[in-house]
Amino acid sequence: MGNDLTYAVLGTGALGGYYGGMLARGGRRVCFQVRTGFEEVRKQGLVVESCDGDFTLPRAEIHADTSSMPKADVVLVCLKTTANHLLKEMLKPILKEGTLVILVQNGLLFEEELSSELPGVPIAGASAFICSFKVAPGHIKHCDFGHISFALLKNSEAASSLLEKVKEDFIACGVEASVEADLPTLRWRKLVWNIPYNGMTVVMDTSTDKLMQNPESRKLIKDLMLETQQGAAACGVMIENEFIEKMLTYTDSMVPYAPSMKLDYDAKRPMEIKGIYSNPLKAAINGGADLKKIRMLEQQLYFKQSEYLK
Amino acid sequence: MGNDLTYAVLGTGALGGYYGGMLARGGRRVCFQVRTGFEEVRKQGLVVESCDGDFTLPRAEIHADTSSMPKADVVLVCLKTTANHLLKEMLKPILKEGTLVILVQNGLLFEEELSSELPGVPIAGASAFICSFKVAPGHIKHCDFGHISFALLKNSEAASSLLEKVKEDFIACGVEASVEADLPTLRWRKLVWNIPYNGMTVVMDTSTDKLMQNPESRKLIKDLMLETQQGAAACGVMIENEFIEKMLTYTDSMVPYAPSMKLDYDAKRPMEIKGIYSNPLKAAINGGADLKKIRMLEQQLYFKQSEYLK
Repeated sequence: MGNDLTYAVLGTGALGGYYGGMLARGGRRVCFQVRTGFEEVRKQGLVVESCDGDFTLPRAEIHADTSSMPKADVVLVCLKTTANHLLKEMLKPILKEGTLVILVQNGLLFEEELSSELPGVPIAGASAFICSFKVAPGHIKHCDFGHISFALLKNSEAASSLLEKVKEDFIACGVEASVEADLPTLRWRKLVWNIPYNGMTVVMDTSTDKLMQNPESRKLIKDLMLETQQGAAACGVMIENEFIEKMLTYTDSMVPYAPSMKLDYDAKRPMEIKGIYSNPLKAAINGGADLKKIRMLEQQLYFKQSEYLK
Repeated sequence: MGNDLTYAVLGTGALGGYYGGMLARGGRRVCFQVRTGFEEVRKQGLVVESCDGDFTLPRAEIHADTSSMPKADVVLVCLKTTANHLLKEMLKPILKEGTLVILVQNGLLFEEELSSELPGVPIAGASAFICSFKVAPGHIKHCDFGHISFALLKNSEAASSLLEKVKEDFIACGVEASVEADLPTLRWRKLVWNIPYNGMTVVMDTSTDKLMQNPESRKLIKDLMLETQQGAAACGVMIENEFIEKMLTYTDSMVPYAPSMKLDYDAKRPMEIKGIYSNPLKAAINGGADLKKIRMLEQQLYFKQSEYLK
């Protein structure tokens, strides 16, 4: 019955609710931190409506904040990166010697930033290829896909062995999971999808399928992917052309979809512009690549955000 | 009392209504072609609400199409360029030997296109720095500025002398006017304003003042101007950096303004993407300049237009 690891999930939304829910359903000990609607979720439990079968966890361990949570072997950080300035303080009560902190988040350089705040703590990144969203507090809808990939920021024997056990737990609980050798590769490959679709659905106020149907916007989506490939190369990460074609085909096959940034925009929440645009642009510039179309998208997104966030 | 030139105005909107109206008020013979609301305009005449003083022309010569119009010495083409495929046929009834056709339009290469359809006809371009719009058929509101600059596509003694007389007529009728030596220079200088503001007000769904207030969008506006400068250079047209600063300052001083493309977009009319984006991009590529942000704006505009035009 698995590795007996204890998990803490920070942020019980589209990702934390689904992956934490799958682990808990599979018998792992999981504590969930729920910010919005804590009382309600504690009463009703966690509900996951999934394309692979719905389930409810009436007795999920729900906490309003980390101060009441036990120390964990593994922390899955599933918060929006716009809350990452709070992360160090949130983590303190639940860290013990060797706790592995996994950022199940979008965007570049957050593992590096956290590591400089918490030196010595093993940190990994995770990239989720999944269509899911939060319907209401404690109520997650999972529409498609679900694979999760992990990679360590710094390799060590202890952290590698722990991450391997995490992967085994995910797989045993019904989630496709893998461990990748290189974190920048993991992050840049995800950006190939996130950079074009997140920003373009916001700026064009549309959904992925519409962008793919019009030949001009489809061309622009591909141009943005090719610039992402250039940025990755400037950071020493090679992304093959076939991967770009695969991402286009993958999106063609998706149900019409509003990426997380579009949901944030529609709800007038802060958008993850820093991790998905500003940090990659900074890294690319450092490597000598000037990504003009991605920079323009960043500029447009900051304008759009300024219309509702002061 | 002037040069006794007869004028035909094709399209009695923001530009044709204002400039034709000023000429007619000043005593020149002007025939107006009015497509939408012809009956109404013939009854009520032409109304110009101007920041320099309102006036009405109850007896303006209004025609539904050119077939009933007398031949003209000068034709002011003030149609949207999206109607330019009709231009050759519209012009036929009103052209005589030496008639000067002036395209008071936005965008690049239309004079060249018309010249290849009507070889031997003298053609000029005109660029209007004006804030005006059509309130209703035959009812124009002029808010700011008004200068018009002319330039010939091909220089000839007869055409130059005629264009000089046109300029004198405009000035005598209260419009600031000038003749410039080089048509590509005239067109590219106007594009320095048109390329950033027309597209960006549509794609961001906003007005010029909002774009100038946010630092990121202001930077993008300037980036687009700098790319326009690059495109001009690739076509042999030098635009000085001071001109770009002047356009930014000019826009800061403007009343909050929706450029013509934004009005077209809001009214779900075809947008002048070809003249303001596609033709300049084509000319720049021919000269070896790849204008990535302008190309991205063109792609976004075609997407936006495809949402309402099938």
